[in-house]
Amino acid sequence: MILGQNQYGKAENRVVRITRDGTTHHIKDLNVSVALSGAMEDVHLSGSNAAVLTTDTTKNTVFAFAKEHGMASAEEFGVALARHFVTSQASIRTARIRIEEYAWGRIETPGPKRHSFVRENQETRTAQVTFDGTAWEIVSGIKDLVVLNSTDSEFTGYVKDRYTTLPETRDRILATRVQACWRHSGADAADWDRSYRRAREHLLGAFADTYSLSLQQTLYRMGTRVIENCPGIEEIRLSLPNQHHFLVDLAPFGLTNDNEVYHAADRPYGLIEATILREGAEARIPADMTNLS
Amino acid sequence: MILGQNQYGKAENRVVRITRDGTTHHIKDLNVSVALSGAMEDVHLSGSNAAVLTTDTTKNTVFAFAKEHGMASAEEFGVALARHFVTSQASIRTARIRIEEYAWGRIETPGPKRHSFVRENQETRTAQVTFDGTAWEIVSGIKDLVVLNSTDSEFTGYVKDRYTTLPETRDRILATRVQACWRHSGADAADWDRSYRRAREHLLGAFADTYSLSLQQTLYRMGTRVIENCPGIEEIRLSLPNQHHFLVDLAPFGLTNDNEVYHAADRPYGLIEATILREGAEARIPADMTNLS
Amino acid sequence: MILGQNQYGKAENRVVRITRDGTTHHIKDLNVSVALSGAMEDVHLSGSNAAVLTTDTTKNTVFAFAKEHGMASAEEFGVALARHFVTSQASIRTARIRIEEYAWGRIETPGPKRHSFVRENQETRTAQVTFDGTAWEIVSGIKDLVVLNSTDSEFTGYVKDRYTTLPETRDRILATRVQACWRHSGADAADWDRSYRRAREHLLGAFADTYSLSLQQTLYRMGTRVIENCPGIEEIRLSLPNQHHFLVDLAPFGLTNDNEVYHAADRPYGLIEATILREGAEARIPADMTNLS
Amino acid sequence: MILGQNQYGKAENRVVRITRDGTTHHIKDLNVSVALSGAMEDVHLSGSNAAVLTTDTTKNTVFAFAKEHGMASAEEFGVALARHFVTSQASIRTARIRIEEYAWGRIETPGPKRHSFVRENQETRTAQVTFDGTAWEIVSGIKDLVVLNSTDSEFTGYVKDRYTTLPETRDRILATRVQACWRHSGADAADWDRSYRRAREHLLGAFADTYSLSLQQTLYRMGTRVIENCPGIEEIRLSLPNQHHFLVDLAPFGLTNDNEVYHAADRPYGLIEATILREGAEARIPADMTNLS
Repeated sequence: MILGQNQYGKAENRVVRITRDGTTHHIKDLNVSVALSGAMEDVHLSGSNAAVLTTDTTKNTVFAFAKEHGMASAEEFGVALARHFVTSQASIRTARIRIEEYAWGRIETPGPKRHSFVRENQETRTAQVTFDGTAWEIVSGIKDLVVLNSTDSEFTGYVKDRYTTLPETRDRILATRVQACWRHSGADAADWDRSYRRAREHLLGAFADTYSLSLQQTLYRMGTRVIENCPGIEEIRLSLPNQHHFLVDLAPFGLTNDNEVYHAADRPYGLIEATILREGAEARIPADMTNLS
Repeated sequence: MILGQNQYGKAENRVVRITRDGTTHHIKDLNVSVALSGAMEDVHLSGSNAAVLTTDTTKNTVFAFAKEHGMASAEEFGVALARHFVTSQASIRTARIRIEEYAWGRIETPGPKRHSFVRENQETRTAQVTFDGTAWEIVSGIKDLVVLNSTDSEFTGYVKDRYTTLPETRDRILATRVQACWRHSGADAADWDRSYRRAREHLLGAFADTYSLSLQQTLYRMGTRVIENCPGIEEIRLSLPNQHHFLVDLAPFGLTNDNEVYHAADRPYGLIEATILREGAEARIPADMTNLS
Repeated sequence: MILGQNQYGKAENRVVRITRDGTTHHIKDLNVSVALSGAMEDVHLSGSNAAVLTTDTTKNTVFAFAKEHGMASAEEFGVALARHFVTSQASIRTARIRIEEYAWGRIETPGPKRHSFVRENQETRTAQVTFDGTAWEIVSGIKDLVVLNSTDSEFTGYVKDRYTTLPETRDRILATRVQACWRHSGADAADWDRSYRRAREHLLGAFADTYSLSLQQTLYRMGTRVIENCPGIEEIRLSLPNQHHFLVDLAPFGLTNDNEVYHAADRPYGLIEATILREGAEARIPADMTNLS
Repeated sequence: MILGQNQYGKAENRVVRITRDGTTHHIKDLNVSVALSGAMEDVHLSGSNAAVLTTDTTKNTVFAFAKEHGMASAEEFGVALARHFVTSQASIRTARIRIEEYAWGRIETPGPKRHSFVRENQETRTAQVTFDGTAWEIVSGIKDLVVLNSTDSEFTGYVKDRYTTLPETRDRILATRVQACWRHSGADAADWDRSYRRAREHLLGAFADTYSLSLQQTLYRMGTRVIENCPGIEEIRLSLPNQHHFLVDLAPFGLTNDNEVYHAADRPYGLIEATILREGAEARIPADMTNLS
């Protein structure tokens, strides 16, 4: 019997950090998951915990670091945590920190006090930092960014086999829930918030600007637009469910439906996934990474 | 054996309506649930469907009405549907239409084309229209509006019994996921979108402006603010889960925590619910209505 | 401004109780939600907590009572809690305890030790106990009991209007996710576990035995079967989503589909709801109670 | 710009197959997701669909194959589909079929008719079949199998660092939601249902029988037990969230808590993941595969 890849840690630490600048408060709201691996044969084989930093301790470390190091960005917080785990415990060789960040906007109020917030956006920002003592890997991402084009999408010219019944269309709704993650070339302190906003903006822009002949084409444009406009990004993976909006047949009721009334279906859905890489970059994002819940 | 209250219909019809104004498109995205009741003894007792307008037909009607009547607002769409069902079938005495509306913003693009959208906001707008052939009842609402004050909340002076361990606090995070619904005095054509925006704005404003001594007090201010500022609203019910943010004890790590680092807990949560009525108004919103998933 | 119905308490206390009988252990796994109401004007109007037993205390009470009173059944546990809150605090007039109970089976092992369990069943048992100092109301229930008949269901003879397109059928799948709750005539100590098993068994039996002409008819048979066979039950409300299984058209592929291959759809779904009462019983279960998440 | 790994297909086809053996019916209830890859550069780069078998066609194929080939087991159904896609379209080089199977039990009825079913179990059976024209890979699995030992679990002797506060314990509840998948050595027709039942039984048996010094140790025993007892299984990956049950401190209420009353917590949770391989086997299951929602 052989023990293969293994890792452990505390998942989904929900840490909220308030920073006070006079009567103006700032909020960071993260969901932090720690996964550690290293010299862990004993705990699996004999149950000896002598090399185990407990998951409870990794949780405590997340909260303590929120105080000691702040949470300027999800990426920087992940870097601080990963470095700590790998450098402070001999048994830990690799640390992977996954973070979700929830967006809050301000509730506008008349007075000088600014401490009231409202959750905004459907989408969630993500970050994953991995450190093995030598190399860093930082993968940022977005999930559940729901977008829709009400026209400029067609679908024609595909293979017809015995099981094909789909009629071709020159005008359809194209809608998807974007799941994307992109790998940065380095781990140097960057303006990670700005980097995220820019990637998000180019994903939205490419989705909106593309006259779509297939969702694959739209996906490819979204990925290339990010690579072209964001110098530090080497690789991006997109997972785009095709959220079908079926034109409702109103003819039985004596009505025409000139691309006006649609039924938004749940399942099944097309699922289009691809990685786009900068010339010369190595493919390192696993195929399923964009589909983790 | 007696047959008591009964109703039936098609739930969760996901209808999307695109309206084209040249190259500028508009989108309405609704989830419509129909519940009909009336002279339905036979279908229950003998299985005779002679008085039954099928749930499939109610679904068809929703999609056909999206074309025939448009969906100017969730409330107006509900009125058109409810009137139709009650007035067109002798066996149907009452119709209740429940609608969820999902918010979309525009993706800004350089050209003149405006047909690209992105889902926005965490919260969902709701509407319920009930018509019994004579009287109308329109209840609008909001769900999953998540808000947080990082200060100006205390909790002291409460009852202490044998099971009380909670220490008093003069400064805590107050966070909740607002579930609210409010009943209008009439069903006349109003600017329902403006009405909704105003109610939402006053809920947010009252939450932010109140120096909170208890979540009940905050709830009451939110409700009264809506009644005071929205002339047509007779009654509002709020259900506010107290989403606890626990100050993390960092003392074991030699750190102070001056209201900076919190753990956002899931369960259990306090749940504060109340109805506020305009003087002279009748209480008609059921206690659990704000908690329907 | 008038303060209407209001209540508060701690929701979703996840209490697990292990009872040891030598090396044989027993487990009870409940999710307990407390809602209290009474003389609570002050806390809403002025924020004074002088009459407020905190939600944190109600949580502590749930856990302490698990030790002091045990949790012989969800209903008895609810009775003990409701009595305590109403009789121990002058400001509290009514207590409503809602409980979900999760089912565990044993993992069979060779030795004498019996402390290993596996969660079983899709469905969840529920109980609601309400006490106002004088009268008791106990409502037991079940949710998410998913059942399917692969034949003996037809649907014909219904109203046809302008929007009707559904073809009649003499053989269809009938599937639903049963949500039901039933009110007992008293609160006296009964064998609540046996009572629940019997109600569940009759719901399943009636569903399976009924040759169905409509889901309403099946619902009515399920309700009447429970009332007829369970002497202490006065009233039952059922909410039955019609989980449509559409026969797939295989003709385009040169295949017949003799009621063999179905597509299980998610939304929309028919939703059939009704209350059945014992002769002379009062209707007290609210219409939406079966649909609470 | 380089196009990396890409795949597409229809996800979550909900196919239900009824087989009639006189008045005894049998049901198979699957959720089938198709992912195809191959010579798909054009559709990404230029939007040409000339090499694209549409996702709609893959959906049709799933339903047609349910009729043509039956669904004897999830694994066999996946094999039939994967072979078809790869061998019938030149542009498709690899097909990966993922299947969830939902368990139904019979509702016992007095007569000879046997067509009534009730969903059972919390857990879901899974299968993944991959074929590249030459090699087959079949990975079976289980998800959401929730288990609990009420004793025979301790946790001591771990690393203590600056952030460690956890007290050691000699008796705790050990509970987890098992996510597991295991790879078979071949794709030959086997009794896949029996294979699944055996793997499930050994997972449960090892969980129950192990006196646990750490969840890692329990995981390793579960994995090795499967490998030892199931000759065709080469590799298994387990992902075990440690669903913490915290002993409630009842001392403030003058009560002792002798491992009787626990609070079942949601988040954060420990997450323990590992692969166990048969001697000489190659590691091929990706690290995140057990965590796909």
